[in-house]
Amino acid sequence: MRPDLAALVRHLLPAPDPAQRPELQLLYRMLLDYPERGGKGIRSELLLLSAQAYGVQPGSAAWNRALWLAVTLELFQNWVLIHDDIADDSEERRGQPALHRTYGVPLALNAGDALHAYMWEALLNADLPAAYPEILNMIHRTAEGQHLDLAWMEHREWNLTPADYLEMVQLKTAYYTVVVPLRLGALAGGYAPPSEFGAAGTALGAAFQIRDDVLNLIGDAQLYGKEIGGDLLEGKRTLILLRWLEDAPADQRAIFLAQMNLPRSEKNTAAMTDLLGWLKESGAVAYAQQVADEHAGRGLALLTRALEGAPEQQAGAQILALVSGLARREA
Amino acid sequence: MRPDLAALVRHLLPAPDPAQRPELQLLYRMLLDYPERGGKGIRSELLLLSAQAYGVQPGSAAWNRALWLAVTLELFQNWVLIHDDIADDSEERRGQPALHRTYGVPLALNAGDALHAYMWEALLNADLPAAYPEILNMIHRTAEGQHLDLAWMEHREWNLTPADYLEMVQLKTAYYTVVVPLRLGALAGGYAPPSEFGAAGTALGAAFQIRDDVLNLIGDAQLYGKEIGGDLLEGKRTLILLRWLEDAPADQRAIFLAQMNLPRSEKNTAAMTDLLGWLKESGAVAYAQQVADEHAGRGLALLTRALEGAPEQQAGAQILALVSGLARREA
Repeated sequence: MRPDLAALVRHLLPAPDPAQRPELQLLYRMLLDYPERGGKGIRSELLLLSAQAYGVQPGSAAWNRALWLAVTLELFQNWVLIHDDIADDSEERRGQPALHRTYGVPLALNAGDALHAYMWEALLNADLPAAYPEILNMIHRTAEGQHLDLAWMEHREWNLTPADYLEMVQLKTAYYTVVVPLRLGALAGGYAPPSEFGAAGTALGAAFQIRDDVLNLIGDAQLYGKEIGGDLLEGKRTLILLRWLEDAPADQRAIFLAQMNLPRSEKNTAAMTDLLGWLKESGAVAYAQQVADEHAGRGLALLTRALEGAPEQQAGAQILALVSGLARREA
Repeated sequence: MRPDLAALVRHLLPAPDPAQRPELQLLYRMLLDYPERGGKGIRSELLLLSAQAYGVQPGSAAWNRALWLAVTLELFQNWVLIHDDIADDSEERRGQPALHRTYGVPLALNAGDALHAYMWEALLNADLPAAYPEILNMIHRTAEGQHLDLAWMEHREWNLTPADYLEMVQLKTAYYTVVVPLRLGALAGGYAPPSEFGAAGTALGAAFQIRDDVLNLIGDAQLYGKEIGGDLLEGKRTLILLRWLEDAPADQRAIFLAQMNLPRSEKNTAAMTDLLGWLKESGAVAYAQQVADEHAGRGLALLTRALEGAPEQQAGAQILALVSGLARREA
């Protein structure tokens, strides 16, 4: 997170203080834990660039509002990650143990809820009433996407198409990663967000997520920073798997489904290595990368047109550079 | 829940519709599930009576605001219960299986988060900016109380005094049950809430929770509606247990601590029956009821004085009748 945003987060969240009960100090340390692990801060960066494209000058009162909106997005991501890690029983987050692995599910669940409330306090500090429906829409859509993803896992649902996957990631990833940051930036500048931000952001959000799914399988572990193959072990439905399943030989498909019905700890390493080979050989990984490229190209074209109406073209160009870099990222 | 509030909840939450994806219909049914199980609606009742005491006329624009504030409290309680039930791995809620027992932890956790966001939407509908810091304070304090309660269980902490218990329940129960409903009612009427609502509400909230703890041990199962002894099986720190531990014979204390270190399913039924007998014989249950009575008496006296400044004395009298009934309840 940028230093100016990190300072606002520290200002907003209660500081652990030796004069408090030790248990409350623990809660306050838990609230700061994920925010201080240093996420990439892509969403807040996109929001702040969008605000600058719409005429918000760093240092102005409107900039202060934009900074609090950026803190809102950062806190949103962090409470969602705490709860996602519980739902997926993830081992790690940003190179350290997931919060519930250190403190147990009950305390981590409650800390996520507390951080959710502080997110709304950050939004109140932004003092921009037009932002409230944006944040509500963002949470509602993200929760729907998360529900689709989790319901498919819970119900062992593999009878899914690439279109199902795209609907899920548009809800789960695209709104909070692209659509809402872009819209909030325009609103911070006093502009009505261009309607094309919706289609541009959903295409780009899907492209980023598919790229992430590809890196999760074939990325460089050092660069990527997450466990390679982690999505497979967690049984995540990805475009790669759904495309592969469409044409997979019956014997491979049977082995795959048997492995997917096992908990992570019981999955067979050799079978997972075989599966990874099949996915690459089948062309499903290349197909997914191609779909990501198509979405990125369409999203960039739409976004380029949408930003033509922005008053500060230099910041607009930085937005396009940021999102096209993300669509091609290795990490 | 009152029919007028239930209608607003239905208006606010998305309706499951056969035209939607089946998974999303499931999410929307999950959101409605706890709110439609028919809680007692004590907090919303207290808020609406407080609003009337402060001059809000049913049917007025201010009444509409008060109704949305009441919906906010109801949705708060419902998302908190979904998450509490996960944290405690409770079996039942209001006579039906807890949400995560039917749908699994990941989907229930996410549904609780989604309901939390709809709570903020209800608050926006109330269109009363002065209510926002009240709701933030309520969630922050409740999360702190919940954290104390859960941290003691997680860390097997029994080195606690009655004062620790009272601090925990004031945070966990009193704010959202009494203090904030009273304050929101005054604010809905355009009045600054009397400062005595704080001390009155924390005393009354503690009284209600201690009464609930007593009923959980010695209540009439039919009337009480929850499993008698459930708190013991879940290892909840109660005033009764902490008082008993202060003077418990060493052998009883050893049996108790050994049982408390076991998961619920492995607790020994005979030992739990013995424990219940010791608690009653020791006078710890009677002591807790006495503390509850003292808190109720002090809270009622403070509240009576605070409400003397309210313009509508008839509604003020109804508030006093409601809270004194709750302090003596059998169910």
